[in-house]
Amino acid sequence: MSKLYLVPTPIGNLEDMTFRAIKVLKEVDFILAEDTRTSGKLLKHYEIATQMHSHHMHNEHKSVNGVVQRIQNGETCALISDAGTPAISDPGFLLTRACIPVSYTHLTLPTNREV
Amino acid sequence: MSKLYLVPTPIGNLEDMTFRAIKVLKEVDFILAEDTRTSGKLLKHYEIATQMHSHHMHNEHKSVNGVVQRIQNGETCALISDAGTPAISDPGFLLTRACIPVSYTHLTLPTNREV
Repeated sequence: MSKLYLVPTPIGNLEDMTFRAIKVLKEVDFILAEDTRTSGKLLKHYEIATQMHSHHMHNEHKSVNGVVQRIQNGETCALISDAGTPAISDPGFLLTRACIPVSYTHLTLPTNREV
Repeated sequence: MSKLYLVPTPIGNLEDMTFRAIKVLKEVDFILAEDTRTSGKLLKHYEIATQMHSHHMHNEHKSVNGVVQRIQNGETCALISDAGTPAISDPGFLLTRACIPVSYTHLTLPTNREV
């Protein structure tokens, strides 16, 4: 699978959550959250039991390589922030940038004969 | 009640719909849609039986006064476009602007003594 999902979460009203966001959070192998206590309330509300790890500006430099390694090994990951869209004024840039080369290695490029 | 809701709808994936959007569409007195055939599919998918009227760039100048009248009389209305957020590159500006004076008349302003 090897996939990183950036999943937006509500900024004030718990019901501002899409069906697809919940589906992704339920189906991924693990979730990275800015604050696991904050996101814990959201996950509990929607009965999402996926394992969750802390991933924020104070530890992302240390943890990003391990996360990329897990994704490279075939796992799927959803990144969420406390509220709103990850990587927009929130943590996420570092991991997203680190995953881009991974996505290239998983592309099957056409050979000259196929073009 | 007298309320106009601007409700965003999916731009490609039907599951990109929030719980609150569905709740609002189910509870309002009537829905204004850019194209009732397009929005009909969305409403059917989420089992929303609210009455729906056509409201688009070719008829909004004629229908806006009637809609404002209904809202002034206490009804609630949700405006949706074919995809995305109404009034952002989509119909909605005219009706939203027409509803602003209505919201002022419903405000209870403090008297001098209360300030």
